[in-house]
Amino acid sequence: MQEESASASARPLDPGSPLTRDTECSGDGRGRAAVDFPVAVVLPAGGSGERMGLPTPKQFCKILNRPLISYTIQAFERLSWIGTIVVVVAKENHDLMLNIVRKFHHTKVKVVHGATSRHRSIFNGLQAFSNNTDDSLTPKPKVVIIHDAVRPFVEEDLLLKITLAAKEEGASGAIRPLVSTVIATTLEGYLNHSLERAKYRASEMPQGFLYDIIFQAYQRCSEYDFDFGTECLHLALQYCGTNAKLIEGPPTLWKVTYKRDLAAAEAIIKETLSASACVITEAAAEAVELAGTLQKNLATQGMVNGSNVSGVLEMVQHFENTSHARLHPVVVVWVKLNTTKRSFDTQKTDELTTFMRLASEVKQANVQLYGIQIDHTKVSELWERSAARLADVTVALIRDRNPALIGQLLQA
Amino acid sequence: MQEESASASARPLDPGSPLTRDTECSGDGRGRAAVDFPVAVVLPAGGSGERMGLPTPKQFCKILNRPLISYTIQAFERLSWIGTIVVVVAKENHDLMLNIVRKFHHTKVKVVHGATSRHRSIFNGLQAFSNNTDDSLTPKPKVVIIHDAVRPFVEEDLLLKITLAAKEEGASGAIRPLVSTVIATTLEGYLNHSLERAKYRASEMPQGFLYDIIFQAYQRCSEYDFDFGTECLHLALQYCGTNAKLIEGPPTLWKVTYKRDLAAAEAIIKETLSASACVITEAAAEAVELAGTLQKNLATQGMVNGSNVSGVLEMVQHFENTSHARLHPVVVVWVKLNTTKRSFDTQKTDELTTFMRLASEVKQANVQLYGIQIDHTKVSELWERSAARLADVTVALIRDRNPALIGQLLQA
Repeated sequence: MQEESASASARPLDPGSPLTRDTECSGDGRGRAAVDFPVAVVLPAGGSGERMGLPTPKQFCKILNRPLISYTIQAFERLSWIGTIVVVVAKENHDLMLNIVRKFHHTKVKVVHGATSRHRSIFNGLQAFSNNTDDSLTPKPKVVIIHDAVRPFVEEDLLLKITLAAKEEGASGAIRPLVSTVIATTLEGYLNHSLERAKYRASEMPQGFLYDIIFQAYQRCSEYDFDFGTECLHLALQYCGTNAKLIEGPPTLWKVTYKRDLAAAEAIIKETLSASACVITEAAAEAVELAGTLQKNLATQGMVNGSNVSGVLEMVQHFENTSHARLHPVVVVWVKLNTTKRSFDTQKTDELTTFMRLASEVKQANVQLYGIQIDHTKVSELWERSAARLADVTVALIRDRNPALIGQLLQA
Repeated sequence: MQEESASASARPLDPGSPLTRDTECSGDGRGRAAVDFPVAVVLPAGGSGERMGLPTPKQFCKILNRPLISYTIQAFERLSWIGTIVVVVAKENHDLMLNIVRKFHHTKVKVVHGATSRHRSIFNGLQAFSNNTDDSLTPKPKVVIIHDAVRPFVEEDLLLKITLAAKEEGASGAIRPLVSTVIATTLEGYLNHSLERAKYRASEMPQGFLYDIIFQAYQRCSEYDFDFGTECLHLALQYCGTNAKLIEGPPTLWKVTYKRDLAAAEAIIKETLSASACVITEAAAEAVELAGTLQKNLATQGMVNGSNVSGVLEMVQHFENTSHARLHPVVVVWVKLNTTKRSFDTQKTDELTTFMRLASEVKQANVQLYGIQIDHTKVSELWERSAARLADVTVALIRDRNPALIGQLLQA
């Protein structure tokens, strides 16, 4: 899925130290060196999400227990060369937004109230910056990036191109090829003519502007523009004579618009995350061979050998202490090797109860604990089949992150 | 998810006779009465899927073990007023396509070879119909619908509107509002101007034509049109002077283009299917109460009470005999009530082995068998918690249809 890799966070956990990485702080490559001027972001998030057919505005819909807008904020926040992120929300969502900022430890966000149209809301966002460096407002940036709260997969590379082009040319915007032919219709609902696809592009987000240009454009634009305009690039052209530089972005820029887009976004996030999970096997000699097989099948997973239920507890506490599960659920799969002939006896049932209780406790800390037991056998055909099934089930658990299956002890 | 309900197949299984419905033959409402002339379909499916970044062309990518194109074919095939469906595929996919037709029992499909461009492929498809009623070719229809193989969720209502408008006006096409602003670019990659969104629409599929009009348009059109044109409506306008009637379609018309769209399509199909599954509980007195609770939580599921493992086997054989699982995996959840104090004893372990073996056998017949055991207790608080968990796990199993978890006996 090369064209859709969500962010640099797709890199695997280092098997040697699975607890030290923050999976979403891995951006910030060449940006720091290239951008030596202040950059800020305005994120209009006032939409009502009526196209979704859902009661919750789409930017607040949750994916893996985290609102979409938090993913988008994080895409900017992880970049050290980006400063304040002004999030513009409807007044009634102000508290909801502050809670999100608190819960997911967003540190660069300033929440501002929106207005009756998208353009008015963006202008409100821009006014949060001050021309006067003395007062308590955030100082105005050189370049401001305007983005949609519902495009969570924006990458550093594109943000950098947009930012540098805005600095050079005054304005810049992401574009994509048209997916459908665009046609002009008659008033009666008949085809008038169709546009030649090659000459047109879809205008997407992010867009970048010299702060002074876009601010001036909004100061000069008409009430009609404020209420019915859709395109910031158009305002910069019409009111400041700035022809935006257009930059082709990847398909992951798409806007989460319909309910199905939430499923698509969830799939991308899960695929990205599936490279980071923790598999714990027992210490017994037979487990070493097992771990080897598993490691081969799950090339990118973190592995820890030598733990029983109490070891699992330790691991989970470590995750809690390091806030590793703050942004995403951490998946821990405990592989239990049964060496006695009968899989289930009274002692094991007690262990199962302990395991289920532990799983239900750590769920609060955003850790998803699953178990798989595998019966040891010397019949190599049976053993290989079990090991293959172990790998299948492990992969499925890690990929699906299904909360309803937390605490289950599955059979390989 | 009103705007995305995939088809009329979302109706629940009748709890009284869960084996009698073909979940995809429920279209065919008012169409039969309104269409008294022959209608055929051309489905160009020659694309290489390069935009997906996948080795398999997207129309052949599988969702729940069934290629996307089979869903699209079925969307037409279930309607009695639609005749032949000409599927145009690249020569190298000819056998693959025939296998799909055989495996999923498609009865109206005629496979034709494609050519070097989309328009040439569609023309090949149209030529499969004969003007001469004497020869062995399919007689030409009055109206032909052209659709994309990768838009599986087209509904009868829209097909009917498209067909009737094509009959009246000569041509018709589905449209959608533009999601992004469309802009014209300069040769140097700068913004030239942006289009006023309200005046334009995205042209989508299906489109309908009087057969004679679209055939004539293709006979008259230029080599340039054949190689670079994208729009059949445009050809009908330019070469036959027919202004197509435009009809707004639902968002489910969207074209599966990127890998993320496959995830979205899968989510829609799973949500539609989740209304049909079979939950089997045991005969014991305590199970009656349990079944009641479950029924309340899973309002739309088929329920059968009074079965042990052998009852599950009978049920599955019934599904096989009725070809119920031909188009979609059928989910069977066996709810096992443990009334003895210890959940696991030797006898139960044998039962588990039998269950897992059965699950692995019926998987071949596209039946997904899962088990959930629930320990009976007279402590009402514990029992309620278990019953709630039973409902959660059941819903998750039915919704996810995860093949890796087949044969697992989960704990409620």
